[in-house]
Order: sequence, then structure tokens, then C-alpha cells
Amino acid sequence: MYADTRTSADQLYFAKFGVPAAFISLMKGSKRIGVFSQLEYARAIKESALDSILSLEEWTENARNRFERANVGVAETIATLAKSYQISGFRVPADFPAWLAFGLQDLGFEIEAVKTSIFPGRETKSEEEMRHILEGNRCSAAGIRAAEEMLKKANIKGSYLYLDGKRLTSERLRESIEIACLSAGSIPLDTIAAGGDQACDPHCAGNGPLKANELIIVDVFPRVAKTGYHGDMTRTFLKGSPSDSQRSLVAAVRGAHRQAVKRVRTGVNGRTIHRSVQKYFDERGFATTRDENGSQGFFHGTGHGLGLEVHEAPRVSIVDSRLKRNAVITIEPGLYYPGLGGCRVEDVVGVLDTGAKMLSSYPYRWILK
Amino acid sequence: MYADTRTSADQLYFAKFGVPAAFISLMKGSKRIGVFSQLEYARAIKESALDSILSLEEWTENARNRFERANVGVAETIATLAKSYQISGFRVPADFPAWLAFGLQDLGFEIEAVKTSIFPGRETKSEEEMRHILEGNRCSAAGIRAAEEMLKKANIKGSYLYLDGKRLTSERLRESIEIACLSAGSIPLDTIAAGGDQACDPHCAGNGPLKANELIIVDVFPRVAKTGYHGDMTRTFLKGSPSDSQRSLVAAVRGAHRQAVKRVRTGVNGRTIHRSVQKYFDERGFATTRDENGSQGFFHGTGHGLGLEVHEAPRVSIVDSRLKRNAVITIEPGLYYPGLGGCRVEDVVGVLDTGAKMLSSYPYRWILK
Repeated sequence: MYADTRTSADQLYFAKFGVPAAFISLMKGSKRIGVFSQLEYARAIKESALDSILSLEEWTENARNRFERANVGVAETIATLAKSYQISGFRVPADFPAWLAFGLQDLGFEIEAVKTSIFPGRETKSEEEMRHILEGNRCSAAGIRAAEEMLKKANIKGSYLYLDGKRLTSERLRESIEIACLSAGSIPLDTIAAGGDQACDPHCAGNGPLKANELIIVDVFPRVAKTGYHGDMTRTFLKGSPSDSQRSLVAAVRGAHRQAVKRVRTGVNGRTIHRSVQKYFDERGFATTRDENGSQGFFHGTGHGLGLEVHEAPRVSIVDSRLKRNAVITIEPGLYYPGLGGCRVEDVVGVLDTGAKMLSSYPYRWILK
Repeated sequence: MYADTRTSADQLYFAKFGVPAAFISLMKGSKRIGVFSQLEYARAIKESALDSILSLEEWTENARNRFERANVGVAETIATLAKSYQISGFRVPADFPAWLAFGLQDLGFEIEAVKTSIFPGRETKSEEEMRHILEGNRCSAAGIRAAEEMLKKANIKGSYLYLDGKRLTSERLRESIEIACLSAGSIPLDTIAAGGDQACDPHCAGNGPLKANELIIVDVFPRVAKTGYHGDMTRTFLKGSPSDSQRSLVAAVRGAHRQAVKRVRTGVNGRTIHRSVQKYFDERGFATTRDENGSQGFFHGTGHGLGLEVHEAPRVSIVDSRLKRNAVITIEPGLYYPGLGGCRVEDVVGVLDTGAKMLSSYPYRWILK
């Protein structure tokens, strides 16, 4: 690999410590090797899970000698390492940089880019990883709690919400969510706090004033600072009094969520779970449609793997994807109808032979007076 | 490109709106084209800077028809688009995913990976971008202020610092910095709040109790939530009374910082500035050395470009790199001696014909009683 650990979860999984700049790492047999500049060298020895820590400056110098020129790049340094380890080709992750892949090919190496995952082990989680994800969801829950408290404290004046004499906005809600995430030990990421029609766009973060009697989606997926693992939870709130249509919308999403969680167990296909959610909505008259202005109804996947990335394998969607023992997935059905509003409920579960193991926990109350 | 805007600054620069999942984007002539799933489609139309928004579902269907099979991937979808736009090859960014580059080659396309930057324009900033960076540093300054206030309020008991009856730690300092960054409208990233010998490892984030009379480095580089641009500032503090050696260390770093900022202007080589800092330290007896335990003295670059990434072109280091008009760079000399401690002072400047334009602002007082 040639990546930093911020943008490459594979690199973080491999080295098990955070490095802000791209570094070379490779595996020969069962030996994990990392090449670090002076800036990271000492920390790599102290903190990383690697078997062998090499000096970038030293190996760049070796490459200069081998290629007999002053100006060598990463490809030449890797080639020099490869010679010393008797390596003639590399399997690289799908997101390995193309320029480096081409550079190594030009130097005579066979490069195979692995499309799925270079670490299939990432798809199933150890007990320790499940604890990290549980911790991530403790942070998510802290964020959702902060939002709920704020909405509870708010006053309704006309159609808007007010708190401390000022309009309550998506921005203020998000700020309090993210501060709670930070205080719980995590870095918040693009938190969603969107109400009304904004919430019908599942990736809209939300902006401007929040209104009374409208559904407000709060989706919180922070990264635990210490471990890099994520939480991912969603709750939908309404401040004021819901209409009958809002009540049936929320009831349908909660029902779909409940039955989808019940279907989770080792060996079940993610697609089967996703189709059961689609069927559940269809049977209750919540149609999914699409026109030139966009989609409404249920038009995203039911869930996705969660770990060092917010979205990783496996999928719980239209794609064929059998759930492995100890996979960790979200279950997050949602319904979105501009005019009526959006509702999504999301929890994280571990996949066991006996069923789903809840890895997130927060009440489902949604009507806040 | 095929990337999300979280990990690819190029994609964010191109599309000018945040998308959490990878999407296809391309440029044909001066036309900017993006391909989005239903999940992003409506938002892309509303928020993006693209000229043409295509539907991923539609173009995947087109690819199925063209390749006469149900199972097509991103490469086949791009190939189908390319046919319609009469494209036979692509220039792709250095970090374009290798599996996709190979896949497109297999489909007969010429792929050229651009090693430097696919958008050379990113290296120089418009007035608007400079304002975004200034805003980033307003957020950085809010974080540094929070740290300073906390250190001011702390009490010294024995060799440790106490606040509200508990030991003041790197973690508590970081939390208050990051909350301040969030409240100012930015997402904090791996903030550094490290004291004593920990601070001698420039990328160590810091952990555990902070001590009186030791140098504490605070390095804050948040991303402005609205624009994606970063701030990046560092100050070094000491709570208590500095020794003479600490005073000369800080004076040397401040002196180097001041003279490096003065050297900045259009056309100057980053390497010249870096060498002047090295010379400044050497002449004052602050030697840089390296052994098997790591490095001490001044062993990182003097600065780096700043924008949508914390580290981007140009460099201010041993590398040959002429500064262009309107580049934005950090100037951050530092000295690190285990036993004595570390000191770094960092500001951000715009490169003008007449000199450096300060894009960050915070006092340099460092001794806190």
C-alpha cells in the first residue's frame, strides 16, 4: 500500500496507528513491513502493529545508489525494497494510486489490483472490534441525546422552534450533537440534522430553521478518536404534535426496522433482508417512485457494513451478499415523501448464528412535547 | 475521477459540493460532468458546480444494454459514457484507483495518470479561496484560544497542572480546542496538544497529564464545514516559569519564523526559505542530528501548501519548488530536543509579489503564569 491512515482504512487496519502522510507498507509471507520518514519513525516503533519498521530516508538512499541518480521516487524505492525481499509482483488494494501502479509496471513488476478487499478479514469483526464499534455508538447516542434534549427544551412559537430566545436551526442542533460526540471521545463526521423536506434528501446535512410538527432526522456517525472505529445511529424526532400521516410513516419505518433486525443471522443474504423491507413498505401502501425531480419512498439500501469506514462490506441492499458470522452491519430503513417528510431509524448489529446482537442502543421515542 | 469528496480534494474542487460516496466525474472540453445515484442526484442539481448531472442508474442501464449483460461495473458505465462523448482515453489524477485504471485499459482506453496535480490551479488561490482559508484560521485561533484560556486558569501543584480539581491532560486540552473549533464552524482533525518529550515527536497528538514548566505544542488544523478549506496554526505555551534554555529555544524558533515569513514572495524557491531556516538554527547552535532512536533539532519541512487539503502543493522544504503568485503556504519552523522539549510556531501566508500576506492571526505570548 501507499496511503495515509486517514483516507485508507486498509492502511489503518494494517499498521494499527494513525499516520497523516502516505507511507509504503507491504506484507511478505506473514511479515508486516512499514517504511517511515523521520517524522513518523519513532512513533511507528512505539505504536504500530508492524513487524519491521524501515527508514524511508535510508531506503531512498539505497534506491539512489541502485538507480545511480539523485532523483528517485516512491516507485524506485519500492523496487529497491522488492529486490531485497525477492518480490517480483504485488497485490494491491483497489484504491492503490494509479500513477504508482503504472510506475511499478514500468519497472517490470506484475501488479494485481484486488477489487473487493485486500483484507477480507475486515468484513468480520473480532470481539475487540465489536467493542470499539459499541463505543462508537455510545458516542453516537451521546450526540442523539444532545439533539433530543435541545428539542425538548425548545419552545414552539408560530411554526418555528426557539431556544434561548433564538430560532433553533439545523446548524445549532448539529453543533450540540458534535460537541457531545467530541466530549464522548470521537470525531464527528458530516452529521445530519435535517427537518421537513430537507430530510427527504438522505444525504442533506440540513440547514436553516427547524419547524414544529415536522419530522427531523438525526444521523450521527462519528469516528472514535482512539481506535478509528465508527458508530452510526439514526433517530427521527418531531417537536409538537404529529399528524396521522406522520404517525403511520414512523410506525411503518419502525415496523420495517424491527422485522429487518429479526431477520439478521449468519448466512442470510443481505438482499433477502432488503427485499423484505421493500415488501413491508409496499404492502402498507408506501410506494417508491422516481421521476426527473428525484425519488421518493424507500430508495436507499437497508444497511451496510460498519467498522474503520462508515460504509464498508457487506451490503444489505439489492446486491447479492451473504452475511458472514461476526459481520457488523447497520439496519436503517427509511421513507421520504416531500410534503410529508422523512423518517429513518438506524441501529448497528453484529451478525451471530443465533440472530442479531445489538451494538447500538437508544430509545425510539420520537414525539417531543 | 472516481472518488468521494471526503478523501479526494480534487473531486471536491471539481464538483464543489460534498458527496460521501464515490462518484464518476469527467471533463470534456470545458464541460464538467458528474454521474450520481438517486441518493445524490437532487442535491447535485441544487448544490454542485457541474454543467451536466447524469443519473447513475440510467447510465448503468445503458451499460447493461451495450455490454449485453446484467452485471456491469463502474468501468463499463464509464466506457458507455465515453462512447457517447466520443472519448478514447482519460487523464486521471495520481490517486485514481488502480483497479479502475486497469479495468478501463482492458476495455481499450488509454489512461494517463497525472503524477503532480490534475488541477494545477489548486496551487494558487482565488480571493474567495483565501477568504475561506482565513476563515479556517479564525477557527484554528478559536481552538488555540480555548487552550490558552484553559492553561491560564489551571493551577500548578507539584509538577502537574490542575483545573476544576482534576489533573489537566492533553485529552482535556484537546477536547476544549475541538469544541471551540466546532462552535466556530469547523470540523477538527487530529488536533495536537502535546507537552514535554511527547511534543518532540511532531505528529504525536499528546496524551496524559500536562506538566508545569514544560513546553506544550498546540497545532490546530480544522476543516471549515461549509467550504472544506482548512486552517492550520501552531502555538507553543508554557505554564509556569521557563528555564533559560527553554527561553532561547523559543526565541530561536520565533526568530526563524519571523525571517522565513519575510522571505516569502512570488518567485522565491521554497527550498531557499527552508535552507535559511536551517542556517538560522545552525548558526545559533541548534544542531539537527539523527540516530537509531530518531531525530532531534529541526527535521521537518518549513511549510506546505494549504487549501482543501492540510498538506498540498507547493512545499517549503528541501525540494525544489518555486512559489507562485497567490499560493498559500504555512511557515512552521520547529525545534525538538527530548529532555528540553519542543517548540513550533506556525502561521499561514498568501504569496504576493510584494511579500507575505498573513492569513492567520494569534498573539505569540507563550509564558502563562
